[in-house]
Amino acid sequence: MRPSGRAPDEMRAITIEPHFTRHAEGSVLISFGDTRVLVTASVEERLPPWLKGKGEGWVTAEYGMLPRATHTRGQREAAKGKQSGRTQEIQRLIGRSLRAVTDLKKLGERQITLDCDVIQADGGTRTAAISGAFVALRIAVNKLMAQGLIKEDPITAQVAAVSCGIHQGTPVLDLDYVEDSAADADANFVLLSNGNIAEAQATAEGATYDEEGLLRLLRLARIGCNQIFEAQVKAIG
Amino acid sequence: MRPSGRAPDEMRAITIEPHFTRHAEGSVLISFGDTRVLVTASVEERLPPWLKGKGEGWVTAEYGMLPRATHTRGQREAAKGKQSGRTQEIQRLIGRSLRAVTDLKKLGERQITLDCDVIQADGGTRTAAISGAFVALRIAVNKLMAQGLIKEDPITAQVAAVSCGIHQGTPVLDLDYVEDSAADADANFVLLSNGNIAEAQATAEGATYDEEGLLRLLRLARIGCNQIFEAQVKAIG
Amino acid sequence: MRPSGRAPDEMRAITIEPHFTRHAEGSVLISFGDTRVLVTASVEERLPPWLKGKGEGWVTAEYGMLPRATHTRGQREAAKGKQSGRTQEIQRLIGRSLRAVTDLKKLGERQITLDCDVIQADGGTRTAAISGAFVALRIAVNKLMAQGLIKEDPITAQVAAVSCGIHQGTPVLDLDYVEDSAADADANFVLLSNGNIAEAQATAEGATYDEEGLLRLLRLARIGCNQIFEAQVKAIG
Amino acid sequence: MRPSGRAPDEMRAITIEPHFTRHAEGSVLISFGDTRVLVTASVEERLPPWLKGKGEGWVTAEYGMLPRATHTRGQREAAKGKQSGRTQEIQRLIGRSLRAVTDLKKLGERQITLDCDVIQADGGTRTAAISGAFVALRIAVNKLMAQGLIKEDPITAQVAAVSCGIHQGTPVLDLDYVEDSAADADANFVLLSNGNIAEAQATAEGATYDEEGLLRLLRLARIGCNQIFEAQVKAIG
Amino acid sequence: MRPSGRAPDEMRAITIEPHFTRHAEGSVLISFGDTRVLVTASVEERLPPWLKGKGEGWVTAEYGMLPRATHTRGQREAAKGKQSGRTQEIQRLIGRSLRAVTDLKKLGERQITLDCDVIQADGGTRTAAISGAFVALRIAVNKLMAQGLIKEDPITAQVAAVSCGIHQGTPVLDLDYVEDSAADADANFVLLSNGNIAEAQATAEGATYDEEGLLRLLRLARIGCNQIFEAQVKAIG
Amino acid sequence: MRPSGRAPDEMRAITIEPHFTRHAEGSVLISFGDTRVLVTASVEERLPPWLKGKGEGWVTAEYGMLPRATHTRGQREAAKGKQSGRTQEIQRLIGRSLRAVTDLKKLGERQITLDCDVIQADGGTRTAAISGAFVALRIAVNKLMAQGLIKEDPITAQVAAVSCGIHQGTPVLDLDYVEDSAADADANFVLLSNGNIAEAQATAEGATYDEEGLLRLLRLARIGCNQIFEAQVKAIG
Repeated sequence: MRPSGRAPDEMRAITIEPHFTRHAEGSVLISFGDTRVLVTASVEERLPPWLKGKGEGWVTAEYGMLPRATHTRGQREAAKGKQSGRTQEIQRLIGRSLRAVTDLKKLGERQITLDCDVIQADGGTRTAAISGAFVALRIAVNKLMAQGLIKEDPITAQVAAVSCGIHQGTPVLDLDYVEDSAADADANFVLLSNGNIAEAQATAEGATYDEEGLLRLLRLARIGCNQIFEAQVKAIG
Repeated sequence: MRPSGRAPDEMRAITIEPHFTRHAEGSVLISFGDTRVLVTASVEERLPPWLKGKGEGWVTAEYGMLPRATHTRGQREAAKGKQSGRTQEIQRLIGRSLRAVTDLKKLGERQITLDCDVIQADGGTRTAAISGAFVALRIAVNKLMAQGLIKEDPITAQVAAVSCGIHQGTPVLDLDYVEDSAADADANFVLLSNGNIAEAQATAEGATYDEEGLLRLLRLARIGCNQIFEAQVKAIG
Repeated sequence: MRPSGRAPDEMRAITIEPHFTRHAEGSVLISFGDTRVLVTASVEERLPPWLKGKGEGWVTAEYGMLPRATHTRGQREAAKGKQSGRTQEIQRLIGRSLRAVTDLKKLGERQITLDCDVIQADGGTRTAAISGAFVALRIAVNKLMAQGLIKEDPITAQVAAVSCGIHQGTPVLDLDYVEDSAADADANFVLLSNGNIAEAQATAEGATYDEEGLLRLLRLARIGCNQIFEAQVKAIG
Repeated sequence: MRPSGRAPDEMRAITIEPHFTRHAEGSVLISFGDTRVLVTASVEERLPPWLKGKGEGWVTAEYGMLPRATHTRGQREAAKGKQSGRTQEIQRLIGRSLRAVTDLKKLGERQITLDCDVIQADGGTRTAAISGAFVALRIAVNKLMAQGLIKEDPITAQVAAVSCGIHQGTPVLDLDYVEDSAADADANFVLLSNGNIAEAQATAEGATYDEEGLLRLLRLARIGCNQIFEAQVKAIG
Repeated sequence: MRPSGRAPDEMRAITIEPHFTRHAEGSVLISFGDTRVLVTASVEERLPPWLKGKGEGWVTAEYGMLPRATHTRGQREAAKGKQSGRTQEIQRLIGRSLRAVTDLKKLGERQITLDCDVIQADGGTRTAAISGAFVALRIAVNKLMAQGLIKEDPITAQVAAVSCGIHQGTPVLDLDYVEDSAADADANFVLLSNGNIAEAQATAEGATYDEEGLLRLLRLARIGCNQIFEAQVKAIG
Repeated sequence: MRPSGRAPDEMRAITIEPHFTRHAEGSVLISFGDTRVLVTASVEERLPPWLKGKGEGWVTAEYGMLPRATHTRGQREAAKGKQSGRTQEIQRLIGRSLRAVTDLKKLGERQITLDCDVIQADGGTRTAAISGAFVALRIAVNKLMAQGLIKEDPITAQVAAVSCGIHQGTPVLDLDYVEDSAADADANFVLLSNGNIAEAQATAEGATYDEEGLLRLLRLARIGCNQIFEAQVKAIG
């Protein structure tokens, strides 16, 4: 029995509230249960120096956690003067995941930045961020297409992410904080709506796992991502 | 006529949503029109080194703005590796304002940190932050009193803040972003529910002002703060 | 009775020694009693990036305190690797104050930086810095006009600053360190020789204050600034 | 055909030179072809603050690349003043991998730091680092056991890592720099000598992949790691 | 002929004004011609962590240059967020030089910090700093002895420093900025009043030099330091 | 008797292994006994901003020490976020030494960076770095000349460096770590193959020294450098 009473292959409630803020070209507040992440997509008609003049664009991401998103207050990264290794690892993952479904040539010479800020954390913040960032990106790209700034749709598929893990010997879907702290293995899968995998990361925490375990986690992830794909479609409208 | 069509002494709509997040001892989402600030109050049973053993507590604040809270995306301070002078100035002001209504001896040897994060900006973020922080602090202190950790109420009055300015020759209350950008003078007042002043800051931007101008701004601020005091009382319940 | 034996509306001795150093386009050593600040004005024929090509100039300030300007040695900010919030707040105030009396269009596309370094501190360092910076700026601008680089005088008035506070219930002028540490309220006023106000900042420390208190502090500040204006005129010669 | 002429399941030459430096408790120079990494294991009788008094030890890693380990000179991270996101991600991975085969209770209240410095880079630096770090750790732990400081062997298995990828449609083992730059997918597997998986990370670069692709990469990784396990045993002697 | 008209072995005017500031335990304003350095000695009854409990004290130095001490304004190190290599090299040299004449055991478990801040620069700032720092240290130590905190005089000799160089083929004493910029070789000598050498540093700039050149520079340095020793004695009184 | 059993004027074994890594335009692994430094020379067809358009090139150096090059592990400078004063002092010395034998006009508008990374430390790391950097520079310049990118040889002499010191009253050559820790004076000489001196630095540690001592150290340095010049010639081939 999971601490939350959920079945092993049961996601938490997924909600995606589009247009949560008004200045960004795209924005959503996404929740996986008590995990809530605000994502904005900002379009800028400029590029990082190393991409200039190549006839293509860039999609990147930044990630942050409000100091009291967590059970006990964490130090503000802006006050510490640097982003932790964890933060940098997560924002690199989010950026790669979104680029996996974006044709950068069709995007044209512009940059879209996905800012993912965790308002409240209860496990799975990076997977909620990726899943919400897709919606913010989709909204921003739709706006660019409506304005005629982009001719062909650069987005090639939906992308979503979910965590899975082995908790007391049982593979389970969408770990919350309590499960995450006690899991033997902890995985994040970034999947595409066409069935492909963009990223698989499975880490032994308490105990290592075998090939069969890896496959069972991947199959749980597919169940979860299919539900997220539906919620994304509904939010985009 | 103000760009927003408001009368000179008319505040924007004030909303205060208490308990916006669940981990913090106190939290609110406060809005002054399109300006929205999330404030959490975190109680910690520890003190900054220079206060240890003096038999009193500390109230402090941190302030941040999400990168796309504004019309165009700003660089994330955690990524830049330092907080701007503006950020530091604002968080020092918030901290002083809250301490002006807190008896630190009665608070006991603990620290309360008010994290004020701007979700969306349309002028007056620091005054909304102070006004919301009071509610978050009040909720957190009520919890400590209910738990018997504090015997006597350390909070001595309500505190609220509002901006005023001279816009096209007319003193106006609660500047939004459009007015703020064009104001000749820009003031922030931090007022107490007992009628006193905790902080007055009036800065000439385009044109300097005289004593009469200063007094008219102060009187507008009283009108605004009285409305905020009411909204605070309602939110605390 | 004030600790120094001064009357409530009595300034400390003001001395302004112009041309204290030889490389800067303008320089002064200003003293308010034992507070001594060295100010240099540096003219550079370049602008911050965001001002380029707008046909106007810029006046800015930096502030520092020598590690042993104070009673006990403070850590050197260059060694700590960052400027404190207090330092940044003060240098922003000095810059705004000088810009309040400078017509940036008439200054032309050049930048003047006022470096204010506190040699010895006994309260009121920021107000001495502003008052001295005006003289350094005036000397530097005079040089630019004598060289024919500026046609019309860009300086529109004199500016000076002084602190006031409520000490043991009495409003007093020009706080020294001993009074400052014990004051109930602490204010800084930046006033113009034409009678106007460039900046008013009044902060409750031990006890909040009322409108009447604010006005009494402002009136003391006028007395002080008038004396500083005279000393400035004499120093410029 | 691979650019290097290797068969798809062919590793580059593996060499492990133990005792490459003399001060460290354990040290090796490991090469996977032209990739050369110097790893030292440093034993310290102290712990990070958050582990003190828990009766267990810690194994951690740091990673660096000499500025001219690569084809063109990269900026020195010490001169830039911060470690890149890539560096931090890699050193977190190395630390987790080594902890997956270490019983921290049996290690006792001490810390072992694996410093992995890339002397020359030609793809696969992080996997060479993990594979070499195991040998340095084993040598250091053997020394502690010989000195009687540790009673029971805390190391529970061998650990090794190798990269795999999909290159021009073919899954290949142990990517060199040329292949890595052009790969559609890029994976790193950290495997144990008991057959288990400590970490699996598979990232789509040019094209996403499917479950079958993930499994084929994992099987190649087993082939490679088995050869590394043999080389480790020979190096430890 | 030297640009300044001085003879090859002629120092610039040396002035040492003791007690220039009032808070520090020792302070001087020293000038070598137009080079002016303010030095304060701060006594603290605490030690750096690595010296605690060894029954001895520490003498250290920090060095800074006001932004407009020089012909053109330099960036403030506190604003840049780090001290330059040059600054660190100089402050290490000053500290070593003072420790060469201090018996740290007799000093007792306290630290004296010499802050050397250049008010105006015209070549030779580090040598003026060392020469002035000796006086500030002597004054501070005299105070400690007068208070009975130190029993035996820990200062074993006077120390002074001067620069020399080879300018247009001629060895010259006490380079000013114009000479320093054009010198073929540039040397700094730190000498003791007992005739010994604490530090010799001779650097080829435009042209390398030979043993005879090195000795001629050293002999010039003795001439200069003897004059500084006299000025130190007079300043201490 | 020296701790190592060497005669006072006896160098440790000097080995210089050229072409130690393959990407750099020049590279060596140099050893002075147990001190081992890897030096690479990187040629870049770009210049620091302040040198652009002057028709000359630049030679510069960076220095680092692997965390466990030493007896006990030191903190990684990249992790600390800044280079120590010692590191900066050393890399400035290395750069100056190489420039003393390079005609920057003949080098043309390009930069050569010498990266000196200490693999193992046993005293004299900076002198080994300079001596090895000359070989790496020579190899890189030979390559540029062979490619016809440089017409005339910009290198005017060989340069080498060695440390000397006064150990238990005896001047000795090429201090190892044990001697260095106990030396009364510690000197580094950078000498040219034409007999001239590029840099002399002699520092009193435990006891100051006299002119005769300085000369005896210089003469020992000549003996050492002559042996290094021979080893350099052999390594270049």
